[in-house]
Amino acid sequence: MKGDPVSFKVRIREWMHNHREEGTSLLQDMVRLPSTQGNEREVQLLIAGKLRGLGMDVEVWEPDGEALEAHPFFYSPRSRFIGSPNVVGIWRGSGGGRSIILNGHMDVVPEGDAGQWHDDPFSGKVADGKLFGRGATDMKGGIASLLLAVQAVRELGIRLKGDIIFQSVIEEESGGAGTLAAILKGYKADAALIPEPTNLRIFPKQQGSMWFRIEVKGRSAHGGTRYEGVSAIDMSMAVIAHIRELEETRNATVSDPLYASNPIPFPINIGVIKGGNWPSSVPDTVTLEGRFGVAPEEKLEQAKEEMIRWMERLKEKDPWFEEHPPAVEWFGARWVPGSVSLEHTFIRTLSEQYREVLLQEPVIEASPWGTDGGLLTLLAETPCIVFGPGVTEAAHYPNEYIKLDHVFEAAEIIALTLIEWCGLEGKGDGDGD
Amino acid sequence: MKGDPVSFKVRIREWMHNHREEGTSLLQDMVRLPSTQGNEREVQLLIAGKLRGLGMDVEVWEPDGEALEAHPFFYSPRSRFIGSPNVVGIWRGSGGGRSIILNGHMDVVPEGDAGQWHDDPFSGKVADGKLFGRGATDMKGGIASLLLAVQAVRELGIRLKGDIIFQSVIEEESGGAGTLAAILKGYKADAALIPEPTNLRIFPKQQGSMWFRIEVKGRSAHGGTRYEGVSAIDMSMAVIAHIRELEETRNATVSDPLYASNPIPFPINIGVIKGGNWPSSVPDTVTLEGRFGVAPEEKLEQAKEEMIRWMERLKEKDPWFEEHPPAVEWFGARWVPGSVSLEHTFIRTLSEQYREVLLQEPVIEASPWGTDGGLLTLLAETPCIVFGPGVTEAAHYPNEYIKLDHVFEAAEIIALTLIEWCGLEGKGDGDGD
Repeated sequence: MKGDPVSFKVRIREWMHNHREEGTSLLQDMVRLPSTQGNEREVQLLIAGKLRGLGMDVEVWEPDGEALEAHPFFYSPRSRFIGSPNVVGIWRGSGGGRSIILNGHMDVVPEGDAGQWHDDPFSGKVADGKLFGRGATDMKGGIASLLLAVQAVRELGIRLKGDIIFQSVIEEESGGAGTLAAILKGYKADAALIPEPTNLRIFPKQQGSMWFRIEVKGRSAHGGTRYEGVSAIDMSMAVIAHIRELEETRNATVSDPLYASNPIPFPINIGVIKGGNWPSSVPDTVTLEGRFGVAPEEKLEQAKEEMIRWMERLKEKDPWFEEHPPAVEWFGARWVPGSVSLEHTFIRTLSEQYREVLLQEPVIEASPWGTDGGLLTLLAETPCIVFGPGVTEAAHYPNEYIKLDHVFEAAEIIALTLIEWCGLEGKGDGDGD
Repeated sequence: MKGDPVSFKVRIREWMHNHREEGTSLLQDMVRLPSTQGNEREVQLLIAGKLRGLGMDVEVWEPDGEALEAHPFFYSPRSRFIGSPNVVGIWRGSGGGRSIILNGHMDVVPEGDAGQWHDDPFSGKVADGKLFGRGATDMKGGIASLLLAVQAVRELGIRLKGDIIFQSVIEEESGGAGTLAAILKGYKADAALIPEPTNLRIFPKQQGSMWFRIEVKGRSAHGGTRYEGVSAIDMSMAVIAHIRELEETRNATVSDPLYASNPIPFPINIGVIKGGNWPSSVPDTVTLEGRFGVAPEEKLEQAKEEMIRWMERLKEKDPWFEEHPPAVEWFGARWVPGSVSLEHTFIRTLSEQYREVLLQEPVIEASPWGTDGGLLTLLAETPCIVFGPGVTEAAHYPNEYIKLDHVFEAAEIIALTLIEWCGLEGKGDGDGD
């Protein structure tokens, strides 16, 4: 740490300690508002108010669906965003420093089967040092870390040279239209940080992903003579087994050491199945929906082609597929993969603050999921690193939670990173010290 | 044939020949009204009008859901039948003869994927001697045969001793509540005939069936780290494979010669699958719905117990099922199995008329599906035989059809059977001649 290193580190830690209750309460407030797709407004107004309270210039706007639809990287199951605003807050530096985008999505996936939750899925309950609720880890906990970091720097009277651009976006879970809308507004910076749940690991590479839909055909018949029909459910099992083989094939060749500890670097997930409409009939159609993981250096189009070619080989498994090839459609969400060089200064800066705060070496890995970072890196020319307090084992699960200690540790590391990266007013370039 | 055998046979054939266009048109009218569950009213009013035109005493009533619900053999996904009337028409004989119930259901299963139909699913189109549309074979074609048979006897001035009770019922496809309601009204007879699609074979035994629903649990996770969850879709595949084994076990021991030509006498059909709600999430629940075939001599409760015991063995396949046993529920429809002795006089009578008309031996087999005949045989003490013009290969399929020749052949056989079974006024007992 340059400037007044010990002092900053100590003062920020002390600030976090004194704001433990306030920060927890802020996160509870966010989790208790169920901001699933289409229901983002209340959380966004809460965050906008918080940013204004920090003295930021705040912009709140509902993305223009028509304008977005014209963009090749737009993907969403919807094209109207009325009632679903984006929020950006800017804290302008005094000039001469490096700017940073702090980006977090506040949309959450649905809670799923409520019966599998021990409490209300949006309880915000605190127990054993954890805060529970849909979105706690993915990624309102990360947003809380960002807000705490900015607030700490601000309230400690630290003045930075570079701009801080805080983006609270919608639609990450459905393809990144919120971040895309912010990029199209012209927001860019010298680096970006997204505190998605990495369990405090640093992810310079991130998996991309795409949603697919497969329609598997059967031939209907009366269930009492089911042997006269062809069950689309049986056929969908063959399709799923075939897709498993593609997943194995694609992952067998991964040699990137950043994925060394990942059992399936680029999974193909079947998330939804639906078919048939009568218990006594042999079902004639089954629809599968899933997520296709794309490697950081892979192009989306390459991955699509590989999938399509693979599906054409289904007929080798069962002659039924020769005449009834399942139709593959790419729909809804896609996340562009991203990769920032391991030599990038921002990784070094973040890693140094990690060591300062946690007194150990950071783990640098590749992200097992897509984030909006791919869009920032590719379209906004803003190299994006993913680093946050949640854990993927909790994301999208029932009883999602986040460890509060991690929220405040991440906030400390991020606050110090802001100071180091953006530079102290009146000091030389932090990077050069 | 007794009385005036050659004359009756010739006159009825001639009548059918002269009413070919009228009969085809009647069947078209019925098929063009999509009488799926809840939409039965228009077809029923059409049939009631037809029966009145034949001089029958007609009763039209909406079954009382509350009264039905109290009955142990009531099964339906609904308990209100407003807008879904039953129709019964009675042609009273002069006395001293045997009575007969002619029973047909006019409800049809949904059309399924309309894209697999060459025409509108309710077109009633005639081509190549076939009439197309949902319900043509199952079983409006059979109802047309019944109506033509009664009309022929009536219009030829033939007067019978026994009563003819014509029942056009709802709900056969969902568990038989229509026929149950008719039975609870007190309708019974010395024999019953249901012209379900047997392809002109005679079925003295009929399979019963029950609907089941199975909820298979998984554990949700983010699709990018799907290995951290347990896919309810993968688990449902294990459940389906396990059920296939039960089907094999149950059918391996069938020795009844009436099932000799049936590849799977008592199938277990999985008709509906539904699970997951997000492409990027590992699904935590899959629901399966299906139909469990029950042997003619089997009790429904026996069959249920066998299924439940079998499902308990799932944990031998995967320890996951030890802690997450799939829940099995019996819901909606059940059809009581039925069996009439091969020695019963009505089978002999029907077989004789079959030989008279088609000049060949009838095929006597067991039905591969449940019908309302089980209820008639068991609850109304009315031995019921299933014999009709449709083919099961067309029932519940897209492009369902019926061969018009078979509709009129069945009508001829049934008309002669009515004369023989109910007896001619002024003649001795037909059976004794």
